[in-house]
Amino acid sequence: MTKVQLYDTTLRDGMQGQGMSLSAAEKVRVVQALDRLGIHFIEAGFPSSNPKEEELFALLEGVSLENARVCAFGMTRRRGVAADEDDALRTLVGSFAPVVTLVGKTWALHLEKVTKVSPDENLAMIVDSVNYCRAAAKDVVYDAEHFFDAWADDPGYALECLRAAAAAGAFNVTLCDTNGATLPAQVEAATQAVVADLSASHPRIQVGIHTHNDAECGVANALAAVGAGARMVQGTVNGYGERCGNANLISILPALELKLGYDVVGPERMRLLTETSHFVDELSNLAPDPDQAYVGRNAFAHKGGMHVAGIQADARTFEHLTPESVGNSRDVLISELSGRGSVLQRAERAGVELDADAAKRAVERVKEREHRGYHYEAADASFELLLRREAGQYSSLFRLESFRVITEKRADGQVETEATIKIWVEGRRHVRTAEGNGPVNALDKALRSAIMDLNPHLVDIELTDYKVRILDSHDGTGAVTRVLLDSSDGHDSWGSIGVSQNIIEASWEALVDSLEYAFQPREARVGN
Amino acid sequence: MTKVQLYDTTLRDGMQGQGMSLSAAEKVRVVQALDRLGIHFIEAGFPSSNPKEEELFALLEGVSLENARVCAFGMTRRRGVAADEDDALRTLVGSFAPVVTLVGKTWALHLEKVTKVSPDENLAMIVDSVNYCRAAAKDVVYDAEHFFDAWADDPGYALECLRAAAAAGAFNVTLCDTNGATLPAQVEAATQAVVADLSASHPRIQVGIHTHNDAECGVANALAAVGAGARMVQGTVNGYGERCGNANLISILPALELKLGYDVVGPERMRLLTETSHFVDELSNLAPDPDQAYVGRNAFAHKGGMHVAGIQADARTFEHLTPESVGNSRDVLISELSGRGSVLQRAERAGVELDADAAKRAVERVKEREHRGYHYEAADASFELLLRREAGQYSSLFRLESFRVITEKRADGQVETEATIKIWVEGRRHVRTAEGNGPVNALDKALRSAIMDLNPHLVDIELTDYKVRILDSHDGTGAVTRVLLDSSDGHDSWGSIGVSQNIIEASWEALVDSLEYAFQPREARVGN
Repeated sequence: MTKVQLYDTTLRDGMQGQGMSLSAAEKVRVVQALDRLGIHFIEAGFPSSNPKEEELFALLEGVSLENARVCAFGMTRRRGVAADEDDALRTLVGSFAPVVTLVGKTWALHLEKVTKVSPDENLAMIVDSVNYCRAAAKDVVYDAEHFFDAWADDPGYALECLRAAAAAGAFNVTLCDTNGATLPAQVEAATQAVVADLSASHPRIQVGIHTHNDAECGVANALAAVGAGARMVQGTVNGYGERCGNANLISILPALELKLGYDVVGPERMRLLTETSHFVDELSNLAPDPDQAYVGRNAFAHKGGMHVAGIQADARTFEHLTPESVGNSRDVLISELSGRGSVLQRAERAGVELDADAAKRAVERVKEREHRGYHYEAADASFELLLRREAGQYSSLFRLESFRVITEKRADGQVETEATIKIWVEGRRHVRTAEGNGPVNALDKALRSAIMDLNPHLVDIELTDYKVRILDSHDGTGAVTRVLLDSSDGHDSWGSIGVSQNIIEASWEALVDSLEYAFQPREARVGN
Repeated sequence: MTKVQLYDTTLRDGMQGQGMSLSAAEKVRVVQALDRLGIHFIEAGFPSSNPKEEELFALLEGVSLENARVCAFGMTRRRGVAADEDDALRTLVGSFAPVVTLVGKTWALHLEKVTKVSPDENLAMIVDSVNYCRAAAKDVVYDAEHFFDAWADDPGYALECLRAAAAAGAFNVTLCDTNGATLPAQVEAATQAVVADLSASHPRIQVGIHTHNDAECGVANALAAVGAGARMVQGTVNGYGERCGNANLISILPALELKLGYDVVGPERMRLLTETSHFVDELSNLAPDPDQAYVGRNAFAHKGGMHVAGIQADARTFEHLTPESVGNSRDVLISELSGRGSVLQRAERAGVELDADAAKRAVERVKEREHRGYHYEAADASFELLLRREAGQYSSLFRLESFRVITEKRADGQVETEATIKIWVEGRRHVRTAEGNGPVNALDKALRSAIMDLNPHLVDIELTDYKVRILDSHDGTGAVTRVLLDSSDGHDSWGSIGVSQNIIEASWEALVDSLEYAFQPREARVGN
């Protein structure tokens, strides 16, 4: 089987994405997760004198990795400076990282407009820099920036840059579609030509591919290059990166390993794919994309009776590969949960034991509530509470007596909101009033102030999203409001739902479900 | 230039996405937006006896479209039933839609495990169904479900199904990668073979492509098929669809038109791309993906001084195409509406005359409000009011002194809401209190009761939808609530927006805009 290697640049190019930020310690955890997944090269960044990067390289030096080699990233030497006098290059060769990745120019437009360097001097910069790193016994990757634009512009010069790097001893030259301009057919043609040219003069050279997602073709471009002979793919976890992101390794890996038959990380490690993707999302404080290829919560979700029946007859009828092969699981959507089997399956996943009667009641309850406008697809917490109530495994945080919310826009234009709630907790009555920047916020604050003493962990729970939608009523008695609330305790996240003609009442219901869900007795909470 | 046609299935396959739901009136607005963009075919769904679908087809029959043809979607006839006795087929040919799209089987595994139909009977089902629709003078698209799996399994039979449809008079056979299993190289090879085979026997047949994003290759698969001779591409706006979504037309269109040189909608219409993408997102209550290819807020965002300097020297250094060509813009904070050209264009469409100063002020106002979380793509009414205020062509219905809304959940479980407003109309003060089934409803009723006498047409105006989303604040001072309100007078419909930390205040703002919009002096209201 042909081997293809993966090169992860989540910690460098991925961090260019808007709002991305990881501490040095978090980056080490990413490195360890990627190593477990079997990634071959992990680019840690530039080992500069910046304290955060310095700390990262110091930490990484002490970490033993099973599969991955750490790469330090930098640029070819500056114009008019000898390689061994270029501070950045000296820092690179001084780092513990066994691999140095050097990015350099290949496109005349950039030489002319950006770096103002002649084509010949650019070649000398490449050769000198690779030589210098090789002399320090580093393995060198040459990243040919803007390669595909350069190729379209002047393929002869673009090739010369690659040949220069190869001749100076780089083990890999990587073709970068830096601006994301290129489409798969063009990537394929250029890569084929490069592989043919270089393999004649440097039979052991490895060609790599580095693509971006500006045309929503980042993954396909990487696959096209591999089809044309590239044997190393650069990308990031979940496609993080500036603009529209980098090529997504989480999608490239299963295509290469499971669909195209390359030897990349082996089928066993593939089962870590979903977990790795979600882990890095969580560390980055990003909600996993439910629709993400292979690893998303919806990637193997089935609606509609025909699909479910087909899957039961033969999973291949409606699934392009088995969810288990990438560590994902099949999801039967709750909106189609008229079936008892599906309720039992969900209950098992939530750790709720349902006997036959309770399952039957739960099915009836779901039907009746869906008819009233409930929708449990994004409200796993409310669904679990429904199951718990039917199973007798539900414990309530409090009993509501009444609440009142007042919002006032005063003559001076100021808006004020205050909520008063009256509740009973363990036989005692609590009356609390709180102001908020809106009615839900005021209710949330008043409720928390009443129950916080008994439930100090409440402080960790945050409402992360709130969505409202008006539904056509099923029975014509007026519009119904559906509120979806997302909450998180920093580790898990869950969704709850409320439905009422009154938005405040619907919000209250979702709010109470969200908090009660977090306090149900359970061994270990099973996420969705 | 070679022509390629686009076929949008947002309203059918797109609605299979989790949580997707649009009313019939909203679907009509999507159809109109897609028609303006130049989409050639718009699949509206199955014109069943389901009241919502019936309403949609009834509404669409009355809409005149410039570019698009409406397609009604259904299946080949049932097993053992004559085509003219199949209720679903009769409904299809009875619909006003000039195009009928029939989906049918091509894969033995499905015939065996799902439909339990013999290969020969399946061919008869295809032929009979196409014949029946042709006899009713419908143009027919044949959607070959699971085509690429069928091709891998038994290419001979897969081709037979296509030939049968073509021979019976379908003008198009579309190759569907229903499970999303297929990668670009396989799509290309199969499509090439199909085009070669069919064009010999049916020289006028058009081959289409319908792909999904399960391998994150939905867009690339569509492009690969076009490269191999397909001349129609099916997909959805923003890639909506079940599991990982359908092929994203918003990415396919610019690749075909601007990168590959096909004649699709023409360069002028391309400038509507970003606006159309965001409009459909907003209508669907989805936040536009900031990293989306071509149309995302970050798609042309530049970090780092080198990029900005490079862009200033020559935009090609760091941009794969000009943001203007797809109606996007380079500046992160400035959306497509805030350019002066776009403001003037919008004003003209709304019949508002803006002089140079007023246009400049309007641009500033839009920028400032977008910074605060406003978003005018689905709020045409609020945008027109903003333009009118700057143009001095605005007349106010009333002046607010204050309001107060109280929502109470009583000890007996009953929820009550009452609103009191104090307003001035033509020098007179009005104080009104009304109960409602929620705070917005109560405010609406109180306001209407105060101004109804002077504006009797208010009775015709209905709030048809209400959407709420929580936004991250731009300046860290807390979450901001954005309310979008859709209204209708039975003839036109329009959208308004309110933004505030307080949901009641935001709703009030959107409510007032919605009513005031309806009463602006104008010759003829121009919809969005």
